[in-house]
Amino acid sequence: MTHIPLRPDLRGIVSLFDYRPETARPLCELAEVLLRGPSTLARAERELIATYVSALNECEFCRNSHGAIATALLDGDAEIPRRVSTEYLSAPISEKLKALLAVAGAVQRSGRAVSSDVVAAASRAGASDREVHDTVLIAAAFCMYNRYVDGLATVPGKSPDEYRQAASHIVASGYVQ
Amino acid sequence: MTHIPLRPDLRGIVSLFDYRPETARPLCELAEVLLRGPSTLARAERELIATYVSALNECEFCRNSHGAIATALLDGDAEIPRRVSTEYLSAPISEKLKALLAVAGAVQRSGRAVSSDVVAAASRAGASDREVHDTVLIAAAFCMYNRYVDGLATVPGKSPDEYRQAASHIVASGYVQ
Repeated sequence: MTHIPLRPDLRGIVSLFDYRPETARPLCELAEVLLRGPSTLARAERELIATYVSALNECEFCRNSHGAIATALLDGDAEIPRRVSTEYLSAPISEKLKALLAVAGAVQRSGRAVSSDVVAAASRAGASDREVHDTVLIAAAFCMYNRYVDGLATVPGKSPDEYRQAASHIVASGYVQ
Repeated sequence: MTHIPLRPDLRGIVSLFDYRPETARPLCELAEVLLRGPSTLARAERELIATYVSALNECEFCRNSHGAIATALLDGDAEIPRRVSTEYLSAPISEKLKALLAVAGAVQRSGRAVSSDVVAAASRAGASDREVHDTVLIAAAFCMYNRYVDGLATVPGKSPDEYRQAASHIVASGYVQ
């Protein structure tokens, strides 16, 4: 049962956006800028960072939602998001993205866990300062979204198909509705 | 040293807002709605929740910044923010705020750590559903802000006076500049 009364036909963070539209607006705008705005990181790469952090935080709704969006952006390849969630070092992704996932994993533990070494490794793998910045903020933002979704005990999606449909809507129209 | 090049005359999250104005806007708007927008929780109560979570995350800049803002809103009483950071159960605050701080503390650990029991205790202490919602989101948001500030190794304030001056500016003008 959800911790506060939420519309039973809505899932995860969508039921919270409906409950409190005033906070929904900046939350959606932040996701839009970070995950879809101009960047040298591909949208799929940014969704994979979101998927990875959500998996670390054991947030079923966000992991499945952003995994499905990454899948849609990768032309239907669900294997890459799955492997990024569970064993990214052996996933078929760039060395730069692996180094940025290491930064994101540190952020998930604590801001203070992000060492000069893990940042230097990302730079050596070709990440720009801006890419390091955005990775830290995406990871930090999902430490918020994940806690928001699970901290109010929202209802996750009922089926993979539900996540696929929601993902195709977001890929087409964005996070700000 | 900061992990990316930031203006050396700016502190904490302010140096990150300067680095990336596109993400600064929704981040500031979220703080404005959550901490200063219409609510049955006093602004000082919301700043105390922010201070407490920042203390749990060991984020010096955010703990000092929001502690100073709470102090300003409490007519200069710095003792309440200090005790909320370290031993809130014995602080001179309402039982409702103590129960909401327990919810915030659970959110800081993990969204999944927020039990029906801790929410029910907050309801019994007089917290509304909307107050529980906002407490969860404030706590989750500070799990983001704290990680953003420390994950890029920003520079904290140099003196209590610096935090007091910044706090008085925010109390007067808000988070959206």
